[in-house]
Amino acid sequence: MLRKIEGGITAPKDFKAAGVHAGIKKTGKEDVGVIYSTVPAAAAAKFTTNKMAAAPVLVSREAVSSGKARAIVVNSGCANACTGDQGLIDAKAMAYTAAQALKLDNSEVLVASTGVIGVALPMDKITSGINKAVAALSDTGHETMLASIMTTDTFEKACAYEFTLGGKPCRIAGIAKGAGMIHPNMATMLSFITTDAAIKPEILNKALSQAVELSYNMISVDGDTSTNDMVAVLANGQAGNAPIAAENSQTYQDFYAALKTVCTELAQLIVRDGEGATKFLEINVVGAVDFADAKCTAMAIAKSPLVKTAFFGQDPNWGRILCAVGYSGAQTQPEKTSLAIGDLTIVVDGQAAAGFDTSKLKDIMAAKDIAITVSLGQGEAKATVWTCDFSYEYVKINGEYTT
Amino acid sequence: MLRKIEGGITAPKDFKAAGVHAGIKKTGKEDVGVIYSTVPAAAAAKFTTNKMAAAPVLVSREAVSSGKARAIVVNSGCANACTGDQGLIDAKAMAYTAAQALKLDNSEVLVASTGVIGVALPMDKITSGINKAVAALSDTGHETMLASIMTTDTFEKACAYEFTLGGKPCRIAGIAKGAGMIHPNMATMLSFITTDAAIKPEILNKALSQAVELSYNMISVDGDTSTNDMVAVLANGQAGNAPIAAENSQTYQDFYAALKTVCTELAQLIVRDGEGATKFLEINVVGAVDFADAKCTAMAIAKSPLVKTAFFGQDPNWGRILCAVGYSGAQTQPEKTSLAIGDLTIVVDGQAAAGFDTSKLKDIMAAKDIAITVSLGQGEAKATVWTCDFSYEYVKINGEYTT
Repeated sequence: MLRKIEGGITAPKDFKAAGVHAGIKKTGKEDVGVIYSTVPAAAAAKFTTNKMAAAPVLVSREAVSSGKARAIVVNSGCANACTGDQGLIDAKAMAYTAAQALKLDNSEVLVASTGVIGVALPMDKITSGINKAVAALSDTGHETMLASIMTTDTFEKACAYEFTLGGKPCRIAGIAKGAGMIHPNMATMLSFITTDAAIKPEILNKALSQAVELSYNMISVDGDTSTNDMVAVLANGQAGNAPIAAENSQTYQDFYAALKTVCTELAQLIVRDGEGATKFLEINVVGAVDFADAKCTAMAIAKSPLVKTAFFGQDPNWGRILCAVGYSGAQTQPEKTSLAIGDLTIVVDGQAAAGFDTSKLKDIMAAKDIAITVSLGQGEAKATVWTCDFSYEYVKINGEYTT
Repeated sequence: MLRKIEGGITAPKDFKAAGVHAGIKKTGKEDVGVIYSTVPAAAAAKFTTNKMAAAPVLVSREAVSSGKARAIVVNSGCANACTGDQGLIDAKAMAYTAAQALKLDNSEVLVASTGVIGVALPMDKITSGINKAVAALSDTGHETMLASIMTTDTFEKACAYEFTLGGKPCRIAGIAKGAGMIHPNMATMLSFITTDAAIKPEILNKALSQAVELSYNMISVDGDTSTNDMVAVLANGQAGNAPIAAENSQTYQDFYAALKTVCTELAQLIVRDGEGATKFLEINVVGAVDFADAKCTAMAIAKSPLVKTAFFGQDPNWGRILCAVGYSGAQTQPEKTSLAIGDLTIVVDGQAAAGFDTSKLKDIMAAKDIAITVSLGQGEAKATVWTCDFSYEYVKINGEYTT
């Protein structure tokens, strides 16, 4: 039973946050933020699979390996990626500065950055920004914190829920940023989740892995996997539930359901805010031999520029969807493949359905939210991927990003 | 020694061609074409790897397995893909109609189609079109034939060369169509090559495989592998050279060089005509552990919408190139990776080169033809891929294709 609540990532007990303008963003908006648990917390995080992983990813990966962390320090406007040894020094300095101000050990601080690749962090601004943010920490600071991680995002992505664990009321909340360079195995996507549930670090890590696989790793805006992706969760146990210590417990199931809800909601918001997006596309693949095949089929459709531009133009050119199915690499046979868009059956057993009406398809494609369902007829596995269309605006945003 | 000649695909001896308007294209332009060798010819062809392979691909794949063919019949405006059993009947009927008119066996005719997926061929128009085209066959018919395969192409793609094989003058010529749904393992790309060289079918097949791998399979416009791709070569031996019977001969090397030149020239023309393209990008990857790694790195860069829009916008956001390198799946290490655009060194050992000047990069990006070179520092293998940028016009063309 999840109930929406107010208060953002500071809704869970004993979390504080703040975001400040440190001078990196030319707009004058918040660009450095801190999330802080006033008590020790279990921590888990997932990172980009990109081999050019940015310096903050390297630093945070090491820090979180202990299963504990109390603070997350973030900057936007500069990704600190492809910055070599200096980048690593700078990322460590961010953690150090926050740790000093918060009286923590360096290893209790996770670091994240997002923005332009290949440029060194302006460390004087960053350092004073971190100190300012720590001084501003409050249990209502979630809004400025959220603002501090946004780049090309056009709206805020946050949610907070209350639920019960073994009779105790618990809270879980998350924020996310990301609109471009979005592709599974995470994208230029940062997401931070706080909860006052009590849970062992290794169990928290398992829950996060599973939830990420079915949420953030099931979205694609442009097929580009960023250098800086990170989703981190801090669980400080202040709800007072008996700590979750095993996966085969009811409390684990309840916690996982809450975590997955937060991750899925934030992942979908990222797609809705996809750069230049005018449509939200849910791609369901059923009847695959296994999950990997179902996912790769759905991803091939989600990544196809031809499919994405057809939805933008509301052009009922459904053959492009089957074309993507055919090159996805999944086990498929044309004569067993079916396709529906919305509730309209379009292809049955590899060819246009009897009485298929293009004008009805055009009506369905005029909607903002559209579901595409492909049935492969090969097995029982299924997967759902969320993506958006490709518009003139996408080209505009990405042709003018640094200039 | 290759010398450019006039005459298109009818330049090689004893080839005839014609294209006619059969009534499929609404524009009134040519939409059915025939290429014909007046004498028996060795034949080889390569086809799409898409599992939704169109009916004409299935029919031609079977026909060419004999290593012989004398005619190719093509239509544009309708792909005859995802058309089930009826599609197969229709593709066979195309071959039958051409075979009857040319007094050939059905198996001597290759069939190709390009256009919208999922729509049945208008067989009455196709049949009368084929008969009209056969009646119009001539040794100067290369221009109408070429027109008959064009869809969203904005210019003609053809070349013809003369060279010598063992002292005998030989000719080789090719045409191609394709501007969208272009990705290696061929795209909605049709290419037909004629030559009067004498060569054994199995050796012709080997030469075509190698040439395709380094030309058509090294281009990408949008990452979509079409259902209808096909490149076919007919070699009718009328040049009178001693038939090429082995790969380890000088004549094979000379023939292969000519064939590869034709394939590479046509493949590059397809990229130059990429839907909405404003720039031609050559992506060189060197220092890879093997060719597969070099190619997958170059392809990751070529397919990245973020890279492609940055070049369109002449935005010096080079980090996106390294980002694509990082998620390509190839063996890479940031600290060994270098990048140059044009003759400007941008990244050395994973970070911005000393004294790197953004304004110089902007000047380079203003050119129409741009070379990108990534050095992985892992080994000796290299690969070159050609692609284009992503523009507003790409979105416009593909948002309005069927409507």
